[in-house]
Amino acid sequence: MRAGIVGFRGYSGAELVHILDRHPLMEPVLLEHRHDSGGRPAARGAKRPPSAPSTSASVRSEALDVVFLATPPEVSMELAPQMLDAGAKVIDLSGAFRLRTPALYQRWYKESHTQPALLAEAVYGLPEFCRDAVRAARLISNPGCYPTAANLAIRPLVEKGAIDLAAGIVCDAKSGVSGAGRKASLKTSFCEVTENFSAYSVLDHRHVPEVLLTSGLEEAQLSFTAQLLPLDRGILETIYFRAPGISSAGELVSIYEARYADEPFVRLYDPGHMPDLRSVQRTNFCDIGVHFDPATGRAVVVAAIDNLVKGAAGQAVQNMNLVLGFKETEGLL
Amino acid sequence: MRAGIVGFRGYSGAELVHILDRHPLMEPVLLEHRHDSGGRPAARGAKRPPSAPSTSASVRSEALDVVFLATPPEVSMELAPQMLDAGAKVIDLSGAFRLRTPALYQRWYKESHTQPALLAEAVYGLPEFCRDAVRAARLISNPGCYPTAANLAIRPLVEKGAIDLAAGIVCDAKSGVSGAGRKASLKTSFCEVTENFSAYSVLDHRHVPEVLLTSGLEEAQLSFTAQLLPLDRGILETIYFRAPGISSAGELVSIYEARYADEPFVRLYDPGHMPDLRSVQRTNFCDIGVHFDPATGRAVVVAAIDNLVKGAAGQAVQNMNLVLGFKETEGLL
Amino acid sequence: MRAGIVGFRGYSGAELVHILDRHPLMEPVLLEHRHDSGGRPAARGAKRPPSAPSTSASVRSEALDVVFLATPPEVSMELAPQMLDAGAKVIDLSGAFRLRTPALYQRWYKESHTQPALLAEAVYGLPEFCRDAVRAARLISNPGCYPTAANLAIRPLVEKGAIDLAAGIVCDAKSGVSGAGRKASLKTSFCEVTENFSAYSVLDHRHVPEVLLTSGLEEAQLSFTAQLLPLDRGILETIYFRAPGISSAGELVSIYEARYADEPFVRLYDPGHMPDLRSVQRTNFCDIGVHFDPATGRAVVVAAIDNLVKGAAGQAVQNMNLVLGFKETEGLL
Amino acid sequence: MRAGIVGFRGYSGAELVHILDRHPLMEPVLLEHRHDSGGRPAARGAKRPPSAPSTSASVRSEALDVVFLATPPEVSMELAPQMLDAGAKVIDLSGAFRLRTPALYQRWYKESHTQPALLAEAVYGLPEFCRDAVRAARLISNPGCYPTAANLAIRPLVEKGAIDLAAGIVCDAKSGVSGAGRKASLKTSFCEVTENFSAYSVLDHRHVPEVLLTSGLEEAQLSFTAQLLPLDRGILETIYFRAPGISSAGELVSIYEARYADEPFVRLYDPGHMPDLRSVQRTNFCDIGVHFDPATGRAVVVAAIDNLVKGAAGQAVQNMNLVLGFKETEGLL
Repeated sequence: MRAGIVGFRGYSGAELVHILDRHPLMEPVLLEHRHDSGGRPAARGAKRPPSAPSTSASVRSEALDVVFLATPPEVSMELAPQMLDAGAKVIDLSGAFRLRTPALYQRWYKESHTQPALLAEAVYGLPEFCRDAVRAARLISNPGCYPTAANLAIRPLVEKGAIDLAAGIVCDAKSGVSGAGRKASLKTSFCEVTENFSAYSVLDHRHVPEVLLTSGLEEAQLSFTAQLLPLDRGILETIYFRAPGISSAGELVSIYEARYADEPFVRLYDPGHMPDLRSVQRTNFCDIGVHFDPATGRAVVVAAIDNLVKGAAGQAVQNMNLVLGFKETEGLL
Repeated sequence: MRAGIVGFRGYSGAELVHILDRHPLMEPVLLEHRHDSGGRPAARGAKRPPSAPSTSASVRSEALDVVFLATPPEVSMELAPQMLDAGAKVIDLSGAFRLRTPALYQRWYKESHTQPALLAEAVYGLPEFCRDAVRAARLISNPGCYPTAANLAIRPLVEKGAIDLAAGIVCDAKSGVSGAGRKASLKTSFCEVTENFSAYSVLDHRHVPEVLLTSGLEEAQLSFTAQLLPLDRGILETIYFRAPGISSAGELVSIYEARYADEPFVRLYDPGHMPDLRSVQRTNFCDIGVHFDPATGRAVVVAAIDNLVKGAAGQAVQNMNLVLGFKETEGLL
Repeated sequence: MRAGIVGFRGYSGAELVHILDRHPLMEPVLLEHRHDSGGRPAARGAKRPPSAPSTSASVRSEALDVVFLATPPEVSMELAPQMLDAGAKVIDLSGAFRLRTPALYQRWYKESHTQPALLAEAVYGLPEFCRDAVRAARLISNPGCYPTAANLAIRPLVEKGAIDLAAGIVCDAKSGVSGAGRKASLKTSFCEVTENFSAYSVLDHRHVPEVLLTSGLEEAQLSFTAQLLPLDRGILETIYFRAPGISSAGELVSIYEARYADEPFVRLYDPGHMPDLRSVQRTNFCDIGVHFDPATGRAVVVAAIDNLVKGAAGQAVQNMNLVLGFKETEGLL
Repeated sequence: MRAGIVGFRGYSGAELVHILDRHPLMEPVLLEHRHDSGGRPAARGAKRPPSAPSTSASVRSEALDVVFLATPPEVSMELAPQMLDAGAKVIDLSGAFRLRTPALYQRWYKESHTQPALLAEAVYGLPEFCRDAVRAARLISNPGCYPTAANLAIRPLVEKGAIDLAAGIVCDAKSGVSGAGRKASLKTSFCEVTENFSAYSVLDHRHVPEVLLTSGLEEAQLSFTAQLLPLDRGILETIYFRAPGISSAGELVSIYEARYADEPFVRLYDPGHMPDLRSVQRTNFCDIGVHFDPATGRAVVVAAIDNLVKGAAGQAVQNMNLVLGFKETEGLL
């Protein structure tokens, strides 16, 4: 089968091409868009997937079964209906279809939503929590990078009532620079970032409403701060809460273990060990480690993903595998 | 006057030499110790302070008024009494004299304290909170890097009762690699650290009891995790708490402002702005920014220092200025 | 078939495990050695190849067809004969068998060669220049990282007589830190390397005699300096020479093109474009770009490889594919 | 006295402010220009020099003795005559006044020179070679970063006839990213630069004609390639040549030593030692190390500077000290 990729010169888009090039059942097609940033020099005659314009006509002429939109939200809102009408499944990596209502979208993305019907139809593609809906979807909204790690780390414990929600959850999140996308910007220029570290969007990141919607938490229960690490790729979230009914770290690990027993992309660590970014870079895994202090009931959970893989392109291919009826791990291990 | 520096080839020790070289009232003397790591190549005839053995005889022959110990705790316990007996003031940058009782030291540093009398005598050198005691001290215990930022950010609010201590404080701390000292170690080797990020000593760092002792907080009230940033120098702590009686970020800033009105090395940011590491690197400042959500009473404070300056050598010189009767900012602005 | 890997916790060894794990025709076996550095924490139940001691008995009990030695030279000299006697092909990634004579080895590696017969027997495994010998070998000496790039860039031009050898060749080489191996060392610790750059082994690197032996150049004809880049992986060599009979950059590219027409792992750039490290990281390619100034006859060639792949583990697997009769690119594209 | 700084938010301009803030005889004034990039958040009430518009009126109203132009060449050509007419000395850090003739400027900077009279008048400000002319100048053209290191390393040997110029000199130059200036650009964005290394302007950098003009070398005699290091600040040039009449590294060092005996900002290394970037970062020094192979007459010289200090702001202040009649090292040691 064949997959079109719009935004293939961006970091998430390039990662999609990299994964699909190695996927045994798919052939990637590059869909050129006027919005694309500049390319990189390439070797003579370097193997390169075929390309076509990012139009609905290309869906038919290139016989595309699925189209990935690794584009800004406004481009996704423009292209998604065209690609769907031409008969392709669409997997959108932007925030365009994550927030359920036009009002919420307006509040957090500071522009009107132009496709409210598609917003209502879109399925949130976090396979560990909505696998069946993904399989049946036409339009899949690929989760944000921060919410992917946060949901995977927090929801099993919330479901089991292990967390004292009145005391609240702190999610201190750190991301590599590729999360900001491939573009010219003073804030992400090398000399501003190297040897530096800073917080941004304190308690006010647009990924917060996404986490709240999907996890069922209320705003007062989750304190989330995003921070910029001087490195290319990876997200690590350090999550603090109180677990009054828990007696050991092992008990928390067991809750995850029961919930994720059949999940191919969630890995747990023994108490006393924590994942780092190196554990997950260039993989589709979400790694989770746990620390617990029985004397005071305080817990710390560390969750790590690669923001471009499980936080973007890898999870998008995981969703593609589901929607096309492939084995969920195909091309991802 | 003249200051001896033991451990001048380490990162804190080299920073001491750098500062004292420019200090208008001091002359540094390098005190060689068998424990020293290897030096760096230097230009022909590069200006280098005089050197002498790290013995009490050198205190007398070199007429040293003060000796800085930028050494491991066991070396500090060995040298501090010798240097004091020879008549020098001693400023110790290790953890040897920070934890008040031999039992606490034994628990966190995993070895017996060999100088209990000096441990009882030592003055904790955080000038913003114990300036007068420092002026009168013989032996000053220079604070740890993490506790310096944590105390400066937390204590004014605790003193004013602004924090809901029952709900607890989360201090998510990140440090550059120089905090681990200058030594051969696989964990701090370049390829293990670059493009990586990891948590260590989760809820269990030896700087926690130091913060508790100095701030008056109880263990259950402070959740502290240390994390390793892929950069050379700087500490940034992201601190979360609830402030039920506070109505705005400006109110929190005002508490700091009142407390630090006359402090030359604490700087505040207007609400909406946060310090980054670049703001403080190679300075003796502690920069503090505040975010507050009036709807839910949740607050986030970001505090940043250079771990080698305000977190080590700079603060040590600040203490030296106090103990020698100089202007507190001499050589530090 | 099955391949044993000694030194699997080092950077080259870990890269071998990574490649062989994905190789469709091979199963890796980890051979534990007392010399190994410490491991990294791993997720619960993470898939891990089987392991065995690094002994000749393991070759038989594990039915190993080939053993990779990603070890220091002295360990390779100890293990190579044992593994060969037990019936395995041996591919050695150290410098133990690269320099042809015990005298040369003694001069550059500062110790006696304990296996002169094997030294005489070993085949230098640079497939682009000695493919047939590799196919027939028992013991393959995998080339050094710097010599791999240097030979691929220089030899086609020397063979064609394009370079003015009397004027000499300058090879200014830069390598990432992983080239120094995985070990505790002050020189490769993060704070010494980050934001730094330095030359080492100026005109005096042990890879120089290896290049001279394989390229046929004389010492006076090649000025080689190695330099340490503040990054993890990759080698880039900037090569300067005079090409009096050449009239354009395209003519130089044509020489490479003719020589490497059937080579799957050498890629050329159009004049005006140069490879960077990003072009080759995590691939087995050697990328080559050319600049030429017709007015003065001066040429600059830039060659880039990943020191852990084409410069070590990838080339070792390329050699394994040859010696086991597989397709040369198996598992490497 | 008072110095105006145009372009104070750029990297060179900010370094000027940093140096002049500490200069005992000068007071800096920030001259706002429409071309300025965005500022950084600052602490409440942070000490900040006074500011004024970048106009000739400000020269008079602020009583400026000297104006630094840390601006693009076209802005320097616009402002230099205005500031000179208002009575200030002008030190220009751009390339506007370095290339002597409008034709050369047109060729390398791809635009017409609008101030040919000033171009003819401007004095090239490399104090080690044109100290007296600087003292008497009205308009000083501050040297480029690469030419500063290249001239200091090459010219003493050329003057003494130590280099075989027919065989040519190779200058393989590497620079940190701050050399590209503070601006939004995809090429210098963090994710494109980190863990990467690349050559640019091979044999074709606009700093080459500057070196040729000042050193007296011909184009065929100097092969220069610029390369981008993944770090903030520093230039290291590795220079290769043949020295047929030289018998030892010490002899080369002696030539430098004789030439630079009274130079406060050039430092030499003993044979066997080479400077790295750490040796010179945040200093106004140029450090030079030498390697020589007596058997073949090949020499390698390594020269290192901080591109923002000796390569820009520091050298500009050195020139200011000369032109204002101060001690040359004032504020720079």
